[in-house]
Amino acid sequence: MELGLVGLGKMGGNMRERIRRADHTVVGYDRDPELADVHSLAELVQTLPAPRVVWVMVPAGAATQATVDELGELLSPGDVVVDGGNSRWSDDEKHAEELAAKGVGFVDCGVSGGVWGLRNGYALMYGGAAEHVAVVQPIFDALKPEGPYGAVHAGKVGAGHFAKMVHNGIEYAMMQSFAEGWELLEAAESVTDVREIFRSWQEGTVIRSWLLDLAVNALDDDEHLDELRGYAADSGEGRWTVEAAIDNAVPLPAITASLFARFSSRQEDSPQMKMIAALRHQFGGHAVENAQR
Amino acid sequence: MELGLVGLGKMGGNMRERIRRADHTVVGYDRDPELADVHSLAELVQTLPAPRVVWVMVPAGAATQATVDELGELLSPGDVVVDGGNSRWSDDEKHAEELAAKGVGFVDCGVSGGVWGLRNGYALMYGGAAEHVAVVQPIFDALKPEGPYGAVHAGKVGAGHFAKMVHNGIEYAMMQSFAEGWELLEAAESVTDVREIFRSWQEGTVIRSWLLDLAVNALDDDEHLDELRGYAADSGEGRWTVEAAIDNAVPLPAITASLFARFSSRQEDSPQMKMIAALRHQFGGHAVENAQR
Amino acid sequence: MELGLVGLGKMGGNMRERIRRADHTVVGYDRDPELADVHSLAELVQTLPAPRVVWVMVPAGAATQATVDELGELLSPGDVVVDGGNSRWSDDEKHAEELAAKGVGFVDCGVSGGVWGLRNGYALMYGGAAEHVAVVQPIFDALKPEGPYGAVHAGKVGAGHFAKMVHNGIEYAMMQSFAEGWELLEAAESVTDVREIFRSWQEGTVIRSWLLDLAVNALDDDEHLDELRGYAADSGEGRWTVEAAIDNAVPLPAITASLFARFSSRQEDSPQMKMIAALRHQFGGHAVENAQR
Amino acid sequence: MELGLVGLGKMGGNMRERIRRADHTVVGYDRDPELADVHSLAELVQTLPAPRVVWVMVPAGAATQATVDELGELLSPGDVVVDGGNSRWSDDEKHAEELAAKGVGFVDCGVSGGVWGLRNGYALMYGGAAEHVAVVQPIFDALKPEGPYGAVHAGKVGAGHFAKMVHNGIEYAMMQSFAEGWELLEAAESVTDVREIFRSWQEGTVIRSWLLDLAVNALDDDEHLDELRGYAADSGEGRWTVEAAIDNAVPLPAITASLFARFSSRQEDSPQMKMIAALRHQFGGHAVENAQR
Repeated sequence: MELGLVGLGKMGGNMRERIRRADHTVVGYDRDPELADVHSLAELVQTLPAPRVVWVMVPAGAATQATVDELGELLSPGDVVVDGGNSRWSDDEKHAEELAAKGVGFVDCGVSGGVWGLRNGYALMYGGAAEHVAVVQPIFDALKPEGPYGAVHAGKVGAGHFAKMVHNGIEYAMMQSFAEGWELLEAAESVTDVREIFRSWQEGTVIRSWLLDLAVNALDDDEHLDELRGYAADSGEGRWTVEAAIDNAVPLPAITASLFARFSSRQEDSPQMKMIAALRHQFGGHAVENAQR
Repeated sequence: MELGLVGLGKMGGNMRERIRRADHTVVGYDRDPELADVHSLAELVQTLPAPRVVWVMVPAGAATQATVDELGELLSPGDVVVDGGNSRWSDDEKHAEELAAKGVGFVDCGVSGGVWGLRNGYALMYGGAAEHVAVVQPIFDALKPEGPYGAVHAGKVGAGHFAKMVHNGIEYAMMQSFAEGWELLEAAESVTDVREIFRSWQEGTVIRSWLLDLAVNALDDDEHLDELRGYAADSGEGRWTVEAAIDNAVPLPAITASLFARFSSRQEDSPQMKMIAALRHQFGGHAVENAQR
Repeated sequence: MELGLVGLGKMGGNMRERIRRADHTVVGYDRDPELADVHSLAELVQTLPAPRVVWVMVPAGAATQATVDELGELLSPGDVVVDGGNSRWSDDEKHAEELAAKGVGFVDCGVSGGVWGLRNGYALMYGGAAEHVAVVQPIFDALKPEGPYGAVHAGKVGAGHFAKMVHNGIEYAMMQSFAEGWELLEAAESVTDVREIFRSWQEGTVIRSWLLDLAVNALDDDEHLDELRGYAADSGEGRWTVEAAIDNAVPLPAITASLFARFSSRQEDSPQMKMIAALRHQFGGHAVENAQR
Repeated sequence: MELGLVGLGKMGGNMRERIRRADHTVVGYDRDPELADVHSLAELVQTLPAPRVVWVMVPAGAATQATVDELGELLSPGDVVVDGGNSRWSDDEKHAEELAAKGVGFVDCGVSGGVWGLRNGYALMYGGAAEHVAVVQPIFDALKPEGPYGAVHAGKVGAGHFAKMVHNGIEYAMMQSFAEGWELLEAAESVTDVREIFRSWQEGTVIRSWLLDLAVNALDDDEHLDELRGYAADSGEGRWTVEAAIDNAVPLPAITASLFARFSSRQEDSPQMKMIAALRHQFGGHAVENAQR
């Protein structure tokens, strides 16, 4: 089939390549003319045969909104837009309604895979009406891993991004699990080879996992991680996971602890611990005197 | 080689079988004469050629202590005792010293594998002096999985049980990670098929793991886990992990949250939340009157 | 001075009474004609001399929005609206802009005090331009406690509700602190009289506080809180506090733990702990077999 | 009455003074002859009339153990030893048994008050048999604050130190509550005067407390705590509280979060966050290649 693909960065570019290898036609548009096959969204829409499928792979927020708006003007009833970016699930319904008003379908799709996706396939979680998903299905089949798993129709519009978001929340807490265990082993006096312990866990244990494999790789590069700073960024998904939990009154203690650990890791000094220090100081000195009730 | 094996329950019995399949001789002793090859520890010791290796596989605490004490009386310099049970790492040093006073070596070994160990091998983490480990090595080789991983000399006496304990702590938090994500997906209105989302994650994602595979199995048995109560026991290892972290001033927020979630799950009603309810009630009623300062 | 007061429920009614006792004139409007002094917002506005001050004390969200909208139509340049309800701080800027377009000022005010406010005064935290705050100042002075504290100009529009929200977040975690300590004491075998321990803490300790006094009151009513269920509602403020923390990348482990404890307290059974139970079951049985990689 | 007091440091010295002001006789012993009234424990014991009461106020652990051991040799049946230091509650039973074997009574007493105790009195929580507590009662009455509260017979031997330990656990979490709220307010764009918000909370709010008063004092000294580092020590009591909770399967999420925040505050760099950073790096680069299953 033919696909319009908007956004040809690292991720979008690799996806175009994987889809083409599956013998589909991809017409790509990017603001960077070096990367693009056409010069405008309008040209992209004109080039595609109806019913058109346009996959949007641009930054979440303003860029995605602008692209959806413009596609709403350009597309025709029966066409389908896929948002494959990292949009917040709560944006999807708005985009779907906006496009539905013009008879255009909408599917949201969470995409996992990073630089390995081109070779190994992308894990896909998508949401939307069955009829719209069906139109995109050949592309999903081209992008997903070759095995029996890796792609799912998660539910209604928004469910794809929601599922991807929860995936990332789980990922945060699994990473934190290994990180805590590693720090404790490194602190233990009797333990002499933490790296080999991690390596050994790759078989026969309950915790064997891809993240464990990655941890072993990291330790092979730098046994005590001496060359790294304990500093971790967080993407929107971790935050959104906690916000969604709050909306649904679901307790997420481990995932939230993992998010907060990242927040703390980025502070030069901790304001809240300054206050703890200040209070401890107040217990013991003359400054407390006029605070007595 | 020949091995004395004390404790032939579900775990010990399977281990005997796996060791025998590797063409070693196992002389087993158990309090249950139906299971035992010999009638006493004394007979077991007499039967083995020197230097003897006796693997203890009995419940941690009093039973292990009693067995170590008795073996200390029976064994000779150059023999080695392996504690393969779930002992707290802090017991190991005491056992090692006690036996060292008689010239007997000691190795502690954390064993993971459960009912799958007989077929797939047991993950082994052991601690002790290199010379004692070397004596036991053929048995470790027989028990471990066939691949390149699954066994590690983790460090000094105690390091084996310590590593196994940390493994279990990580396991607690990984289980909690998936559990939190599952509950959030089940609560989301837009998501229609949580089980299929979990299934799809088995390829191409960052969180693919044996625990994820087990979760899919569980959901295949009972899609919404309706037949289970949200009640989880905890073994000593989770608790010990947090205690070890406190000893070492290592923060373990995700692992500890996972342990506390299990504690809460076993309470019919939460005393602390009664106090929260009581305080909220006090805000609003006449009973508060005499509490004013 | 004269004040228009919209919303004469339990809270608004008591506030009207306290303001009147300070010799100000209050014209009250409520949808319930039994409570109201005038029959409509229009009549309320006509009754007041310019520049008018109208204090809105209705439920956050739709009701507040509708009242602000209607007042925007009725009021004149130089008038000031105070939102004294429990609005989310993020609503305030929108309300302020909407009214500013008509030349009407806006002040947001977090109010604490409950049923004790009439007698003891209300703690007030307000946000807005100094010129608008100055117009309302006599009313703030009438409502606040008599001592030197209890009222603050916290900052720009929104800062009043933000400060009140953080107050409530702190309150959640302080309540949780006492609740955890109480449960632990109740569980200790050596401790025979937890209530008297709490009572004794009211003097000479670091933790003496109004909440401790309330806890003692509660235990005097029901020593072991046997008559309560461990069930705690949460108002919006606790949730908003965590959301605001996430927006600002501020870690709030204790406050968030307190919020999650309330979520858990309201679950008949815990879905996430069902998943933990399911995974533990999978470790040990045949169902795991096909999950092996 | 007459009291033997062992340990005349800052705390013990002030306690001696407060007891003397209540017209009791105190015979003090300290290793530092400048502080001591007698030259040895033996002389102290000889000086006191039977039945003797000896209050031990020396560092927990080895020093307390050595003092208890020596007193066990010197004292006679009917005498009573009070441990007023910061011993772990689990040491008390051992000390009580050791002394009981010689007919000597034992009372453990948690003491709170710091430098303010001399003037305002010390909060006391004690454990032991009623007959032993009765002997010490005049001293408790002299030490405690003048109001109706501040002293409690908490239960059996160990209950005094246990109650003091829980007091400190609650203290940790209350300090953390204010610290988190303060950091969030400091981060909020709309809020212009956090110190005045804290000050205002001292009346009419739910969170008014001595710790809040101390926080205001601290902010008066240094409005943004710029001169402090976010570094907080922890005494044994916080750790013991969590350990006691684990022993009793009581979830303590807020108190434990507070303890862990202190651990983190003391780390130059966080090992666990290095692992998080390493794993994030592995997602995106070539090093991951051989980690693929």
